[in-house]
Amino acid sequence: MHEKGLLIVLSGPSGVGKGTVRKEIFSQPDTKFEYSISMTTRSPREGEVNGVDYFFKTREEFEQLIEQGKLLEYAEFVGNYYGTPVDYVRETLNKGRDVFLEIEVQGARQVREKFPDGLFIFLMPPSLTELKNRIVTRGTETEDIINNRLNVAKEEIEMMHLYDYVVENDQIDLACERINAIVVAEHCRRERVEPKYLKMLEVK
Amino acid sequence: MHEKGLLIVLSGPSGVGKGTVRKEIFSQPDTKFEYSISMTTRSPREGEVNGVDYFFKTREEFEQLIEQGKLLEYAEFVGNYYGTPVDYVRETLNKGRDVFLEIEVQGARQVREKFPDGLFIFLMPPSLTELKNRIVTRGTETEDIINNRLNVAKEEIEMMHLYDYVVENDQIDLACERINAIVVAEHCRRERVEPKYLKMLEVK
Repeated sequence: MHEKGLLIVLSGPSGVGKGTVRKEIFSQPDTKFEYSISMTTRSPREGEVNGVDYFFKTREEFEQLIEQGKLLEYAEFVGNYYGTPVDYVRETLNKGRDVFLEIEVQGARQVREKFPDGLFIFLMPPSLTELKNRIVTRGTETEDIINNRLNVAKEEIEMMHLYDYVVENDQIDLACERINAIVVAEHCRRERVEPKYLKMLEVK
Repeated sequence: MHEKGLLIVLSGPSGVGKGTVRKEIFSQPDTKFEYSISMTTRSPREGEVNGVDYFFKTREEFEQLIEQGKLLEYAEFVGNYYGTPVDYVRETLNKGRDVFLEIEVQGARQVREKFPDGLFIFLMPPSLTELKNRIVTRGTETEDIINNRLNVAKEEIEMMHLYDYVVENDQIDLACERINAIVVAEHCRRERVEPKYLKMLEVK
């Protein structure tokens, strides 16, 4: 019998760079996580590929999946749905593989209720000024949307108390190193491994 | 104001290789921990240096330090005292530096009472057979002492529930990697860093 995999949830405020950090982690050749691709009704940004970055769906398709209970979590965010297909997550965890979700803060809260043992990591900007810069630099949004996002981000930072770990995204490579270290550490947590080792004492 | 350092306690059963792992960690040029050298009344083994591996003391000297409350923890183990001088630990933590203790299981229990926030890591042999081999291979002990140690080791493994993490010492370099990852992760724990980040929201 193998152990179940870990559910790793990376979230954080809008604009902090969750997607960039996630891509960097999955570009490393020795990554041991399985990435759960999210679904969204927002339009693909330049370079984004359906089935790689997201599964892009219409509003009608998305709402049908909600009704069928096929989403582990979903959220409406700046007018678009984002969600995580549930079957893939459960099947992969049962195979003993760690699953990596990169999702919005609203969605992470729903996952916490269903998977209290998950590993919840909050990606944090080094400062609010830096966060605003990143939203502006993305260059795809109007000023109203930028201010709206910044206000949403502040509310999201107040949700930090629902998380197990906070990782500062000061440098992408450092943030990835910290996330990898957290997963290694979590696999060594006594509660997870104690039953295996205590069996050792029963065998003569 | 800086954060207080972490107290890292590496312990585990007799013969598991705590000393070897500790030496390997401190031979790495980028180690960020301060090593707290233990005191003992046992005789130096070949190559061990006073003030480097241990502070070697007589029974009389050791018992005087106990009376003066100068030891964070101490234990009598196979006829000898082992202990940790308390002043160095407190001063170094207050400077914001992480302190690394490598101590016996009896002593770790006392430290847990005084430093409940410490980071307690249990070093575990891959199997009991392997543990016996390591005790025998050390080659410095009689058969009676070996059997006595193995029984003590089994009792020590039952103390695992007092620890936060269990690290298997299957390979020294892997064990060191896991310990380093645990410390990185622990510095990202939300409880430790949340106050710092919530202050960010108060500043306009």
